[in-house]
Amino acid sequence: PETKLPKVGTTIFTVMSQLAIEHGAVNLGQGFPDFDVPTRLVEALARAMQEGKNQYSPMTGIPALRQAIAAKTERCYGYMPDADSEVTVVSGASEAIFDAVHAVVRPGDEVIVLDPCYDCYEPAIELAGGVAVHVPLDPRSFAPDWQLVRNAVTAKTRMLMINSPHNPSGAMLDADDIRALTELLRGTDIILLSDEVYEHIVFDGAIHESVLRYPELRERAFVVSSFGKTYHCTGWKIGYCIGRPALSVELRKVHQYNTFCSFTPAQWAFAEMIEAQPEHYEQLGAFYQEKRDRFREQLLTTKLKPLPVPGGYFQLVDYSAVSDLDDAAFCRWLTVEKGVVAIPLSPFYGAPPPGQRLARLCFAKNEATLDAAIERLQKL
Amino acid sequence: PETKLPKVGTTIFTVMSQLAIEHGAVNLGQGFPDFDVPTRLVEALARAMQEGKNQYSPMTGIPALRQAIAAKTERCYGYMPDADSEVTVVSGASEAIFDAVHAVVRPGDEVIVLDPCYDCYEPAIELAGGVAVHVPLDPRSFAPDWQLVRNAVTAKTRMLMINSPHNPSGAMLDADDIRALTELLRGTDIILLSDEVYEHIVFDGAIHESVLRYPELRERAFVVSSFGKTYHCTGWKIGYCIGRPALSVELRKVHQYNTFCSFTPAQWAFAEMIEAQPEHYEQLGAFYQEKRDRFREQLLTTKLKPLPVPGGYFQLVDYSAVSDLDDAAFCRWLTVEKGVVAIPLSPFYGAPPPGQRLARLCFAKNEATLDAAIERLQKL
Ligand SMILES: CSCCC(=O)C(=O)O
Ligand SMILES: CSCCC(=O)C(=O)O
Repeated sequence: PETKLPKVGTTIFTVMSQLAIEHGAVNLGQGFPDFDVPTRLVEALARAMQEGKNQYSPMTGIPALRQAIAAKTERCYGYMPDADSEVTVVSGASEAIFDAVHAVVRPGDEVIVLDPCYDCYEPAIELAGGVAVHVPLDPRSFAPDWQLVRNAVTAKTRMLMINSPHNPSGAMLDADDIRALTELLRGTDIILLSDEVYEHIVFDGAIHESVLRYPELRERAFVVSSFGKTYHCTGWKIGYCIGRPALSVELRKVHQYNTFCSFTPAQWAFAEMIEAQPEHYEQLGAFYQEKRDRFREQLLTTKLKPLPVPGGYFQLVDYSAVSDLDDAAFCRWLTVEKGVVAIPLSPFYGAPPPGQRLARLCFAKNEATLDAAIERLQKL
Repeated sequence: PETKLPKVGTTIFTVMSQLAIEHGAVNLGQGFPDFDVPTRLVEALARAMQEGKNQYSPMTGIPALRQAIAAKTERCYGYMPDADSEVTVVSGASEAIFDAVHAVVRPGDEVIVLDPCYDCYEPAIELAGGVAVHVPLDPRSFAPDWQLVRNAVTAKTRMLMINSPHNPSGAMLDADDIRALTELLRGTDIILLSDEVYEHIVFDGAIHESVLRYPELRERAFVVSSFGKTYHCTGWKIGYCIGRPALSVELRKVHQYNTFCSFTPAQWAFAEMIEAQPEHYEQLGAFYQEKRDRFREQLLTTKLKPLPVPGGYFQLVDYSAVSDLDDAAFCRWLTVEKGVVAIPLSPFYGAPPPGQRLARLCFAKNEATLDAAIERLQKL
């Protein structure tokens, strides 16, 4: 058949992870931790299986998990969503984004995305028949220029997608951004999709400005998160979406015919874990800050120049002192010739990228892995 | 927002399962087993977690599982799909169907479905902008009338969806059906979607006529199955889709931006289980046949008249000796007043249903559950 998604190839993460294996490279590409999943979580999951919790969960997720998510949201952001009508458990943040887009975007609708952005946004929009409108973030600070965003709004704008802490840059929206965003949306019926999967990985005492903190924003928002980044289990694929009942109803219509429900024993395990060990996600920022600081210090012994990392588990580096190659060619060369996988930024752009000499390294790795990478990077 | 899916409410399975809980009814409604998951599978999953297999799997599924599925397909149907390019692991058959439809159905395309059919088919088609064209099966035998199907084909027909063993009726396609289907499709470019999730639950020595047995059919088909029904774990949500490379490429474009990958530890567990204990799925028909035969015998002591059940784990019963209510009202009454949940057939119809007095009972339950249901049904 002719393809419905002509622009779509294999994701950069898959390509680079395969290349990593072929060349025995240290994989700081695809974003996944190599730390152990908390013991309590693994044990709780095994127990749930033993107890026979192996059949379909309710389509929206088990009540215990939805309640735990609601209570945690209140603890973190001072707002308690209704567990029944506003919290939906899905198979990863990626499904949440796909469902949310399909729930509200109609053929011809425009969706504003801020480039660079995660590579699943645009294909979801296209499949729903919508048009992604690309607005660039600042090519160095990755801050939004809200005037540019405003200029991109038309009568057809159905949705605006934001992501903080930001992948690939780690940039975070601050209170000024929230004010500007709120004013921009006021009086429109644009739906906000806020991707907050790195919500607990924030540094230097910064505050994660979750959309859930702000009544005027959350009224019109799908807020998406997941447990993969928080509990070191990106392969468990349990995420959730919080949205006002009128939005959640629409999301659930898609979800119930897409995956229907998610791996039931893990839902029980997360419900237990969130309540029993809130210190886990409360201390995650400090855990990662140590990693980040150590890794940045090590990078200073190489020719790669680290950019600031306010949040998330990715470190952008400027490689212009090493190479004139564009970022895709550089990352391939670094993998094949130097044995370290990095991810280029260009696949995160819909419009032609601004041509910065930047690459992304994932520091969600144990010390041995990072040390091995640094040793190789020192030889550049 | 105005809804994109105006016809969609909550699924009948969710509605009836909630009603079951409210009224303490014996739940023979939503199709899920209450048997234990095989010990080996639970242990293998726990081991995979312990071994740290908790991060993203490859987008198409771990190679070991794709190879196990390919080898099992050859053992069962004499055809070995290519594990790399033709087998894709997804989050349940439901996601497989959603992805396949979104991969190839464009706005305005027609998709032929045979009524009654599983309730996720039409919403997936509608969301993709397609139009579901409903062709009725025989209201008593649930056999397709291939001439009626042929009459429904137009220049816009993009896909035909079939399901054998059939939910809700248990009817199975036979060799004559396959011949008629093959002739019907010959010379067209209609894509076939074959939902075969009950493939191993077949009775009385019947052969499951998998589309994978037939070169001319499988050339143009997405063949969908899952492990939920085979391993008593409907809540694990690991399914797969087998299709020729040109079709699988398109399916994967959707899958990689929908859920990306499925719960990794379960993929390892299934890979081990399929290879280590082929007798499990080989003996599943016999296991269920005993259940079916016992349940049918018990039903003869009630006023409900059981229809033949060639495959699957559902028993249709004719309740016309008990009630004149339509099937939705009857099932609600049976749940609320008589304490047994059954599923009406009308939600499986897109066009107005033929008004049979039929309800669906799930017999994938242990003896105590079925005995309790029968005791209540005897009082009708
Ligand atoms: C689903 S693979 C991509 C993982 C990820 O979030 C990233 O590397 O940006
Ligand atoms: C996903 S809930 C429905 C389960 C099922 O397959 C059925 O009852 O028909």
